[in-house]
Amino acid sequence: MQNNDIDKLSKIIAKLPALGTRSARRIVLHLLKKKDTDMVTLISALQNVRDNIKKCAVCGNYDTNDICAVCADASRDKEVVCVVQDVADLWAMERVGLYRGSYHVLGGILSALDGITPEDLNIESLFVRINQEKIKEVILALPATIDGQITAHYLLSRLKELPLKITTLAQGIPVGAELDYMDDGTIQLALSARKEL
Amino acid sequence: MQNNDIDKLSKIIAKLPALGTRSARRIVLHLLKKKDTDMVTLISALQNVRDNIKKCAVCGNYDTNDICAVCADASRDKEVVCVVQDVADLWAMERVGLYRGSYHVLGGILSALDGITPEDLNIESLFVRINQEKIKEVILALPATIDGQITAHYLLSRLKELPLKITTLAQGIPVGAELDYMDDGTIQLALSARKEL
Repeated sequence: MQNNDIDKLSKIIAKLPALGTRSARRIVLHLLKKKDTDMVTLISALQNVRDNIKKCAVCGNYDTNDICAVCADASRDKEVVCVVQDVADLWAMERVGLYRGSYHVLGGILSALDGITPEDLNIESLFVRINQEKIKEVILALPATIDGQITAHYLLSRLKELPLKITTLAQGIPVGAELDYMDDGTIQLALSARKEL
Repeated sequence: MQNNDIDKLSKIIAKLPALGTRSARRIVLHLLKKKDTDMVTLISALQNVRDNIKKCAVCGNYDTNDICAVCADASRDKEVVCVVQDVADLWAMERVGLYRGSYHVLGGILSALDGITPEDLNIESLFVRINQEKIKEVILALPATIDGQITAHYLLSRLKELPLKITTLAQGIPVGAELDYMDDGTIQLALSARKEL
């Protein structure tokens, strides 16, 4: 005999990524207990994001303006474009804080299984940018999965006809990892790409 | 260079139970992608719950009215009260659908570690109810943890002075469990409380 409003909210929250029925119930109960504090701030933060956040017309990042802070920053190198799958990857790169170029968010990767073709991704806009801006280097920072690498190869096949430097993130043993816990593919790859000291 | 509004929403979501920084980012990104669908329904469902849901003045359940649907249901047995730690436990009992009595939500359990004393819980209101209503049985459905059992013992010591039947949920091997995966305490308990067939 659970209340209708509570039930509806639980079901909506349960469908969010990383959540399920049980964790949704815990969240709803927590919010009910803090109806005048946590719940109010959550609702107003959601409304702020809904009302204020736009997709950047250039790179696909999310920000308050039509041109995001990265694209609008004159100090950043506009000759280098880092191609990423999703805004989450752009955020990950920005958290590191080392990269000073611009981005291009594909909004997904090619997938035969999910029926995602080049037309479904922001690929044409990348080539429009390369034609219009003075881009000298494209960094392919796509996932090291099969679909990610297929997408990288597709882009490479079209990019290498243009007068560009094309690079990709280095692959190998991640920092802090123990060899014993690495998969065979990573060890093979790290060995064949070994560097002289 | 993450946007302020996005950052604030991520931090609020990350503090919810069962969530952390990474899952909060995934949820925010999902909501940004579905700004005109999922985000709108989430906000309106949250607002509905905030505006419409009250705590039941009798048992402590959450519902649209001051007296919840369980307490208002004339067909339910008001002579039996099931004492639970939290509304989540009440929901769990209701999902089973077998119990036809009423509830009393303590709003927590006694805890020396967290400094939770009987005054912090809805305990006095339980005795007020026992005095005023014609309650004949109290079921202690508290957690099978140390703090849960301490709370049950505290209630038992006060309840047994009253002319009441006091019961507790049966403990033992849960349905579908393999002995091999059960802790020693549960096996001991199930053995000493074994039933003749």
